[in-house]
Amino acid sequence: MFNKTLKKIRVGIIGAAGYGGVSLIEHLINHPHVTIGALIEKYDVNKPISVIYPHLKGFCDLPLLDPADPKCPDDFDIVFYATPDGVGQKEARRWLDKGIKVIDYSGDFRFNDKDSYASYAIRIGRTKEHADPDLLSSSIYGLPELHRAEIACSDLVGNPGCFAVSSILGLAPALKSDLIDSNDIIFDAKSGVSGVGKAPSPPFHFPARYEAMNAYKVAGHQHVCEIERELTLLGGKQIEITFTPHVVPLCRGIITTIYANLRPNVNIKSLRDAYTSMYRKEPFIRVLSHGEISSTTDVRGSNFCNISLNIDSRTGKLIILSLIDNLVKGQAGNALQNMNIMMQIEETTGLMSPGGFP
Amino acid sequence: MFNKTLKKIRVGIIGAAGYGGVSLIEHLINHPHVTIGALIEKYDVNKPISVIYPHLKGFCDLPLLDPADPKCPDDFDIVFYATPDGVGQKEARRWLDKGIKVIDYSGDFRFNDKDSYASYAIRIGRTKEHADPDLLSSSIYGLPELHRAEIACSDLVGNPGCFAVSSILGLAPALKSDLIDSNDIIFDAKSGVSGVGKAPSPPFHFPARYEAMNAYKVAGHQHVCEIERELTLLGGKQIEITFTPHVVPLCRGIITTIYANLRPNVNIKSLRDAYTSMYRKEPFIRVLSHGEISSTTDVRGSNFCNISLNIDSRTGKLIILSLIDNLVKGQAGNALQNMNIMMQIEETTGLMSPGGFP
Amino acid sequence: MFNKTLKKIRVGIIGAAGYGGVSLIEHLINHPHVTIGALIEKYDVNKPISVIYPHLKGFCDLPLLDPADPKCPDDFDIVFYATPDGVGQKEARRWLDKGIKVIDYSGDFRFNDKDSYASYAIRIGRTKEHADPDLLSSSIYGLPELHRAEIACSDLVGNPGCFAVSSILGLAPALKSDLIDSNDIIFDAKSGVSGVGKAPSPPFHFPARYEAMNAYKVAGHQHVCEIERELTLLGGKQIEITFTPHVVPLCRGIITTIYANLRPNVNIKSLRDAYTSMYRKEPFIRVLSHGEISSTTDVRGSNFCNISLNIDSRTGKLIILSLIDNLVKGQAGNALQNMNIMMQIEETTGLMSPGGFP
Amino acid sequence: MFNKTLKKIRVGIIGAAGYGGVSLIEHLINHPHVTIGALIEKYDVNKPISVIYPHLKGFCDLPLLDPADPKCPDDFDIVFYATPDGVGQKEARRWLDKGIKVIDYSGDFRFNDKDSYASYAIRIGRTKEHADPDLLSSSIYGLPELHRAEIACSDLVGNPGCFAVSSILGLAPALKSDLIDSNDIIFDAKSGVSGVGKAPSPPFHFPARYEAMNAYKVAGHQHVCEIERELTLLGGKQIEITFTPHVVPLCRGIITTIYANLRPNVNIKSLRDAYTSMYRKEPFIRVLSHGEISSTTDVRGSNFCNISLNIDSRTGKLIILSLIDNLVKGQAGNALQNMNIMMQIEETTGLMSPGGFP
Repeated sequence: MFNKTLKKIRVGIIGAAGYGGVSLIEHLINHPHVTIGALIEKYDVNKPISVIYPHLKGFCDLPLLDPADPKCPDDFDIVFYATPDGVGQKEARRWLDKGIKVIDYSGDFRFNDKDSYASYAIRIGRTKEHADPDLLSSSIYGLPELHRAEIACSDLVGNPGCFAVSSILGLAPALKSDLIDSNDIIFDAKSGVSGVGKAPSPPFHFPARYEAMNAYKVAGHQHVCEIERELTLLGGKQIEITFTPHVVPLCRGIITTIYANLRPNVNIKSLRDAYTSMYRKEPFIRVLSHGEISSTTDVRGSNFCNISLNIDSRTGKLIILSLIDNLVKGQAGNALQNMNIMMQIEETTGLMSPGGFP
Repeated sequence: MFNKTLKKIRVGIIGAAGYGGVSLIEHLINHPHVTIGALIEKYDVNKPISVIYPHLKGFCDLPLLDPADPKCPDDFDIVFYATPDGVGQKEARRWLDKGIKVIDYSGDFRFNDKDSYASYAIRIGRTKEHADPDLLSSSIYGLPELHRAEIACSDLVGNPGCFAVSSILGLAPALKSDLIDSNDIIFDAKSGVSGVGKAPSPPFHFPARYEAMNAYKVAGHQHVCEIERELTLLGGKQIEITFTPHVVPLCRGIITTIYANLRPNVNIKSLRDAYTSMYRKEPFIRVLSHGEISSTTDVRGSNFCNISLNIDSRTGKLIILSLIDNLVKGQAGNALQNMNIMMQIEETTGLMSPGGFP
Repeated sequence: MFNKTLKKIRVGIIGAAGYGGVSLIEHLINHPHVTIGALIEKYDVNKPISVIYPHLKGFCDLPLLDPADPKCPDDFDIVFYATPDGVGQKEARRWLDKGIKVIDYSGDFRFNDKDSYASYAIRIGRTKEHADPDLLSSSIYGLPELHRAEIACSDLVGNPGCFAVSSILGLAPALKSDLIDSNDIIFDAKSGVSGVGKAPSPPFHFPARYEAMNAYKVAGHQHVCEIERELTLLGGKQIEITFTPHVVPLCRGIITTIYANLRPNVNIKSLRDAYTSMYRKEPFIRVLSHGEISSTTDVRGSNFCNISLNIDSRTGKLIILSLIDNLVKGQAGNALQNMNIMMQIEETTGLMSPGGFP
Repeated sequence: MFNKTLKKIRVGIIGAAGYGGVSLIEHLINHPHVTIGALIEKYDVNKPISVIYPHLKGFCDLPLLDPADPKCPDDFDIVFYATPDGVGQKEARRWLDKGIKVIDYSGDFRFNDKDSYASYAIRIGRTKEHADPDLLSSSIYGLPELHRAEIACSDLVGNPGCFAVSSILGLAPALKSDLIDSNDIIFDAKSGVSGVGKAPSPPFHFPARYEAMNAYKVAGHQHVCEIERELTLLGGKQIEITFTPHVVPLCRGIITTIYANLRPNVNIKSLRDAYTSMYRKEPFIRVLSHGEISSTTDVRGSNFCNISLNIDSRTGKLIILSLIDNLVKGQAGNALQNMNIMMQIEETTGLMSPGGFP
């Protein structure tokens, strides 16, 4: 276990000024075992992060350092790539070679072989070739509820996509316990706007968005790749899914509504047993009571995933609702959970906040 | 045809001060063939409607009249019941007996027999008995795209539910042309908050709602009854569906995302042909181009239904998006469309507005 | 008067795809005396306007024409410059020389001499030199409530700024009737986000804005110039004001709260008399009853200006609230009102809509 | 100083399920020196607080106890009245007699004599008589920046109103240093909707509010009383102010824009000196740099007050912007700051969070 009495974990954040970076900073500010070593960012170089995000003033006033600057520090215990696809894969080896652990937010290290990565990469319009394919086999998919032990031993973790977190956590116990027909699974996902990131664009301009809801990338979203891979592992057979993402005019929050056909004789009790059994000791999963309605505000600002189990008795459909905050359990909070596991400290450190209401 | 040169249609609105009433008033203000005869409302009696809705000042300043007042006028050509379930069914006969036509917004006249009504009524916690069951057989389900000819001959129309409008219009051509397996149909619906109506309640208090999205009535929503009835008529066999409504923090707009399994050999062209063939002459339906993304703002404030056709080629799933403004095509606009048809005037009169953006 | 029986007014819109352009198109669609001759726009050339604004599909599908294209039509009766500062001043003469009237949305023609224009131009960081200064003396400030007669005779109208409309209309009667000390006037203005226009930028990205309110350009906003000019004309002496604009997270609506010291012996009755006297015949001004609270939703989507008169009896302060929709009375609606006046048709044509609620 | 090694501070919260209560609970959850002894609430008795506010599940699952129940515990070190006006004044003595300290959120203990209280009470439509007037002289106005030493010695603190916090903090240094004419001060305040509290009502129903902004209680808001009292103390002479509150459609945040006439020879430097001098050691006040724009998101979720100093050089007006989160520095956070002071623990304990963005 990390020797907490001797020194603090020194963290570097690359891509520090995006939403995923700033959310991580917010969580690290009061983390008792962490020091932020440097904030690294291509844009707004030398500006204090608190000039860009003034709510951080007095809490974190570190400047943004140019990654291309040779004087940029590199004496970290762990670095986070809070960057878009394609950045971490080019640089990860440099850190790993020095014994520095790496957590990447993007899809760069969510896959373990070149072909799987290529299938993913073409969905986002990138070149099929990974920049450092030899690293793929040693990277771990950073969903603690499914891969905790491997994460604990890993130096390189690919943090999952936000839709993938809600989708996989929502269906894993049903598949693992073989409660559903795995040939016909639908994920209808609704996300708040912060998932698009910090860069402004016409569809997310306030006047254009405040009353606008739409589906996008119908049958083509890139998170399908990692969802199918994990479900296939859980179900023990090849699984293909239908996935439709929607964007709705709130800031934080995802609801993924999952539809599947229950196997005969599965009832609400056996369903609930499968979920409570798998998630009993999970610190950040709440399996809701029967009939309990849950809103995205119940998980906003926190690292929790709320799961509601429902059966349509007329049609035999399983209907699961899986709710997260896309910026916390869907990104920075889950990444910090991975860091805690990798550094052998209490997994929930820095993450036990309920968020705020209203 | 209604003799437009001689006199205007005299309209009475019962329940005039709810959202469905005020939206109807907005549409009637500039309707060239209509005079609003009276606004009738249990609450705020004698107050001008423009005191409650000040945007109407100078456009409609009629007072709200007490329905219990014997002096309340009754010299209408047609009355709208913009009221909750249970009101219209008690009073419709009174108007019909005088030769006055009736359009009811609620579920009171959406079903044609006692048993169908009873199945619906228990879903909303009402008594199973209809107050005037003999009227049921002569009432017409007011979805012009499916029942235009019957509406034109009818004196009593049950205006559809908002979710039902988007669901039925979204799937009708696929069923009618037998393009899908009717045993496994899912409707995932997302609605803006105005669907809840005008009465404040804790889940819709601004601070509680502005960042809140949730599912509700999972597998139990009352609109399922009319959707299944209409789909059964179209498909020629008994159809049961899975339907999950969600509420999202915008004001106006519904997206219903519809999933079904395509029959073998159905491709995007045959799918599109079925839709354009059925809806070619429909004034308020837009079948979108392939790949076109549509947002609720494209139909906000207008009587249009936008329909997007998609196929997930990997899983063979049909994915249809059906978008409406719940207060217009989902309620008051559709009711006015019915009125125009019943009164033999041009169906689009008073309804040809694009809404406003942003 | 324009001969409505012979032909329609042929309108050209330059800058048609901005918010001010699209709002004008929405109003012209059902205008009985207008034909839209061409939509002219530098960006998205040849795309139908209804591809960019899909709510217009079927209502206006005209393509955007390149202003630099020699084949771009010029057979208009009137052109609107729905463009930023600096465009109209370079091109207006070309139209005027052909006998075509011009209405410009920007500050290009709000001032009548070079020096006044220069004072304005430096506030927005532009060169002080006007591109066609000889036109300034013949341009008219397009606020119908103050300059109706001149507008009716003019070929060149500078449409006012949105803050200026609410500010000037809110205070004009008090100044004209000499009810206040003109040395100490404060305007505290709050605007919805659509005032910023269509181009996305970081402060107006949905996630950054949905809970953000701020002041900006404190003591430096450019609309101060035209407000002071008009108030000086009304008050008969040089007037300087304090003006603070704020942006709040709604889409449409301005409230300008105006503070001034009442002259001795002015009471609520004499105040009200001054306003009702000046605005009695104004079709788009509502002087509210004493104590009536007005919200931006009362004017949203309409061309109305709501004015609330209040006196703080303890401090002798006049407190006026002036509410408009910044895109309608604050821009496109007011511009259309000017067009109606200039073309000698009924001033309210195409503008008598209450907007919609909720 | 409170002996932190021996035991925790035992806190009782009356009115625990309102927004002010739940915000306090959120802050106390991770407070190292506090135990929540009981949640007391008239409504929803016996329900766990986490059923009403599900984000608290696992963090605080205490039931709501009936204040009328004789078994309701009373072994606290301090109680908070997070209740409306009129509750705390009837019950405070009971706790004080047992040596238990009291902090009241309402206006019940913001005034030190019967007449001052009466002037306040009539503004909110309450009886002029205070239920326990003898307590008034010993109560302290709980604004730490002005009354820290008295709060530290007090057993009974009246927590300020949210508008009062932003107004007084915004102007105090200017008055204390005699930089302005105290005869002519205007406060134009804009508040998010959460200030209205948890109870739903028509003007705050989501569809009615999402695009609605309005002024209310023009020249009549009750917070004027405490603002004038404190400014009078600071200025050394009787001060009367003009105050206009507005409500805007965001959840959390107040901007108060303050206008006053600067004395001759006051410039931005002397102004800034007065503010930095008075607030240099204040842990929760940020005096912003010249020209820095601040948004409510800079203080959302935190206990900070951001103050921006501006001079309109043309008119000699001082323009100050004072920003807070109405639920934190404007209510629960400030109350906790008072508790820390009263219990002799580090003042910032439990309050050093930056909030979250976006």
